Amino acid sequence: MPSPAPTVAELAERFSLGVRGDATARIRGVGTLANAGKDQLAFLANPRYRGQLDDSTAAAVVMRAADAEGFGGTALVAEDPYTAFAKIAAVFEVVPVRQPGVHPMADIHADAVVDPAAHVGAFSSIGAGSRVEAGAFVGPGCIVGENCVIGAGSELLARVTLVTRVRLGQRVRIHPGAVIGADGFGLAMDAGRWIKVPQLGGVVIGDDCEIGANTCIDRGAIEDTVLEEDVRLDNLIQVGHNVRIGAHTAMAGCVAIAGSARIGRYCMIAGGAGIAGHLEICDRVVVTAMSLVSSSIREPGEYSSGTGLMDNRSWRRNAARFRQLDRMARQLRDQEPKDDTQ
Amino acid sequence: MPSPAPTVAELAERFSLGVRGDATARIRGVGTLANAGKDQLAFLANPRYRGQLDDSTAAAVVMRAADAEGFGGTALVAEDPYTAFAKIAAVFEVVPVRQPGVHPMADIHADAVVDPAAHVGAFSSIGAGSRVEAGAFVGPGCIVGENCVIGAGSELLARVTLVTRVRLGQRVRIHPGAVIGADGFGLAMDAGRWIKVPQLGGVVIGDDCEIGANTCIDRGAIEDTVLEEDVRLDNLIQVGHNVRIGAHTAMAGCVAIAGSARIGRYCMIAGGAGIAGHLEICDRVVVTAMSLVSSSIREPGEYSSGTGLMDNRSWRRNAARFRQLDRMARQLRDQEPKDDTQ
Amino acid sequence: MPSPAPTVAELAERFSLGVRGDATARIRGVGTLANAGKDQLAFLANPRYRGQLDDSTAAAVVMRAADAEGFGGTALVAEDPYTAFAKIAAVFEVVPVRQPGVHPMADIHADAVVDPAAHVGAFSSIGAGSRVEAGAFVGPGCIVGENCVIGAGSELLARVTLVTRVRLGQRVRIHPGAVIGADGFGLAMDAGRWIKVPQLGGVVIGDDCEIGANTCIDRGAIEDTVLEEDVRLDNLIQVGHNVRIGAHTAMAGCVAIAGSARIGRYCMIAGGAGIAGHLEICDRVVVTAMSLVSSSIREPGEYSSGTGLMDNRSWRRNAARFRQLDRMARQLRDQEPKDDTQ
Repeated sequence: MPSPAPTVAELAERFSLGVRGDATARIRGVGTLANAGKDQLAFLANPRYRGQLDDSTAAAVVMRAADAEGFGGTALVAEDPYTAFAKIAAVFEVVPVRQPGVHPMADIHADAVVDPAAHVGAFSSIGAGSRVEAGAFVGPGCIVGENCVIGAGSELLARVTLVTRVRLGQRVRIHPGAVIGADGFGLAMDAGRWIKVPQLGGVVIGDDCEIGANTCIDRGAIEDTVLEEDVRLDNLIQVGHNVRIGAHTAMAGCVAIAGSARIGRYCMIAGGAGIAGHLEICDRVVVTAMSLVSSSIREPGEYSSGTGLMDNRSWRRNAARFRQLDRMARQLRDQEPKDDTQ
Repeated sequence: MPSPAPTVAELAERFSLGVRGDATARIRGVGTLANAGKDQLAFLANPRYRGQLDDSTAAAVVMRAADAEGFGGTALVAEDPYTAFAKIAAVFEVVPVRQPGVHPMADIHADAVVDPAAHVGAFSSIGAGSRVEAGAFVGPGCIVGENCVIGAGSELLARVTLVTRVRLGQRVRIHPGAVIGADGFGLAMDAGRWIKVPQLGGVVIGDDCEIGANTCIDRGAIEDTVLEEDVRLDNLIQVGHNVRIGAHTAMAGCVAIAGSARIGRYCMIAGGAGIAGHLEICDRVVVTAMSLVSSSIREPGEYSSGTGLMDNRSWRRNAARFRQLDRMARQLRDQEPKDDTQ
Repeated sequence: MPSPAPTVAELAERFSLGVRGDATARIRGVGTLANAGKDQLAFLANPRYRGQLDDSTAAAVVMRAADAEGFGGTALVAEDPYTAFAKIAAVFEVVPVRQPGVHPMADIHADAVVDPAAHVGAFSSIGAGSRVEAGAFVGPGCIVGENCVIGAGSELLARVTLVTRVRLGQRVRIHPGAVIGADGFGLAMDAGRWIKVPQLGGVVIGDDCEIGANTCIDRGAIEDTVLEEDVRLDNLIQVGHNVRIGAHTAMAGCVAIAGSARIGRYCMIAGGAGIAGHLEICDRVVVTAMSLVSSSIREPGEYSSGTGLMDNRSWRRNAARFRQLDRMARQLRDQEPKDDTQ
């Protein structure tokens, strides 16, 4: 634990950063480039905000060496300023102290096991056959069903539901409203009515995963739905049954993934994108916002669908022509000079 | 209740299926084609997985007659293997026993009625004028407001909210986090500020409907929002006020339906699709993933919008041209030979 | 409070409306144009429903002067019939009486302050440093974390979560399942693993805002996420960290807004639209359903992206040509007559 007001020099040493300017300034918190006070640290990572640098009143700014050239203030120089800032900001984060123990208004099943070094909050219930390991935190209003495991140091912040057969690794962090392990959407038509396909699998979530608020991850039909380690999901994401998401993949809000899709490692799926079922996406794929992946992707790279935004009048005109596009293409093809090589 | 390890012959007889191969094998569970063990049953329905058939170590596989031709193992032959499998898998499902009764940490309003053969779990509350019928299950953490009905055999799995005036038929199944009967989004502008349009209606949900995790169904403004029988909604779906959804229609995750849309029977709406308000969709319409229905559909069939996925560089080039599409079309039109019949 | 069955004349006077026809009729409730009973009031605002006017059995209908021309029944004439109807309907709304006080099964932290004229329901918890002001209503199953403020007259209907550092103004209304103040999605890559960027800000929500069911509003990374007054958000919306939404802006269900977007006043964002991060949208912008805003909008007006709905066969043909659009455009360009002015 550093002093509550480390100097720039102390931060530079602790986080292996370079310094330009006054290394003796004391830092008492963090702020934005635009609004940081005279004892606060700011950062510059996104070039969009470079214009705010010269007017910044921050005590010091974390930035790349190239941005530090000619900067008149104090710079902490980092190869990746955002990562460096993340680490420094953690120094100033005040985290509420969490006492181990079970709240008197919690409901623990006789066949559940709660480690004495775990916390279970008010109005939470832990079902038969479930286990809460040491250092785990189950906040208020959480429902943990049968046969779940909450690994050491994992956190259900509040009002999280683990339905059944959900196994969390260590240091998993789940935000309020998330529902993990609900029935997959398995239906079969029988004589004009739907019948339910039993969902006999579970959900396995690897170490260091993070699951956003109101995100849903269904349990598998036969085998498990799987998130490998260090997967990061934002809010309001839907993960269908038997999906597998590779380690270190991150997804922004409102992504929807249909059943049995397999997604690689180190992928980045932007907000509102959709991924159809029963396909594969290889490692290191980027999908841009609101794009639909409807077949497998076998090469790393960035992928998109959709059209750009237009004023509505222009859009109407162009969208009307989209309906004629095949006819237009055939007309153009007919105009092409004919030769034997085509 | 069958024996815990029925033979293939016993399953064939019980579910009216054909058999090829060894009918004496005992089945102790179900598995995937790829991973089923020697005492497990698998199925082949999606042709995508046909290549896994020959290597399968399953004791028997449910499949179509055509797929069974030349198959060396044991086949249970079905017209619809997925439906047959769904029924057989239910034999092996272990469902937790649910005792009738009200948990001591539940809060039942003096003017609510809970049938003695119903269950109300911990941290659940039942409001004034509401009724929980025989065999209904209200899991932990559910909030049922005023004047709701939970029909016989219906289940609120956990942490479900019925806000007010929500009537569920029989055998309705609602997954965690769903919110049924919240205010419809009714606003009117008055002197530069929004005022709220009172939402005086309710929600009526027919027998055998299923509502996914974190799905929202708003109550009607004047009349009710209605789901007919056997409607199946996946997770994170938004159903606006006064929508009507016909019997046996199914919708995948993240569909959004604006107010007063009327959707027919036996429709299939794929994930992430959007349906605008005040329109009608006839029976037996399929809408593909992430398509937007912006006007009524009067013919059964499959409908789509959007563009296909491309590598981002190609996409940028083509999307830029979409902005010029009307100009391109006019240029092409000017090139067409003029004649009197046009 | 008017009499429970005001006459048309009394309503006209109270809400400053014109009358045509029988002003003595007594109104005992509201109904739709199609189904209102003989003692109910209906309204006609959307021209789509004009054809139902002549067959309506309503006692009176709120409508524009132009629609009242030649109408044989009783009309309440309003410039904006929907707004007038909204005000009249409120007369007939039955709202459950809410007693001040804290439910015995609520959990109030010793360092929280609940005004004696506020209500806190069953299974709700109020964290350290939080304050519930006079006339505020915290329904059942709500979790309010540390250092939150629930302003006078604000309502958390049921099962709402305010995570931490969330300040609500007065008369804010939040529907079930909403999660306000969860961690923003801030991640930085460090040696091949994600590290978390501390989310040190909060959420500020202005007076008279409404937040829909299962909507998520993340707290800011450094500064606050802000909704100005009278912002209206429907269900299942995602608002990323450090977004700012201007006063009187309304958004329909399933909109997704990435971090640090700044949205103007009096905007209308239709359902399923997406807004990328770090951009600005000026006042009075309308975005149509499922459109993606990927760069700043500086002029008021209506904006769209995407393509129209087609039968799937036509769509496939045209979408295939979209992949060739740049080539088509270049072919067309080559056909243009060359001259010096281009």
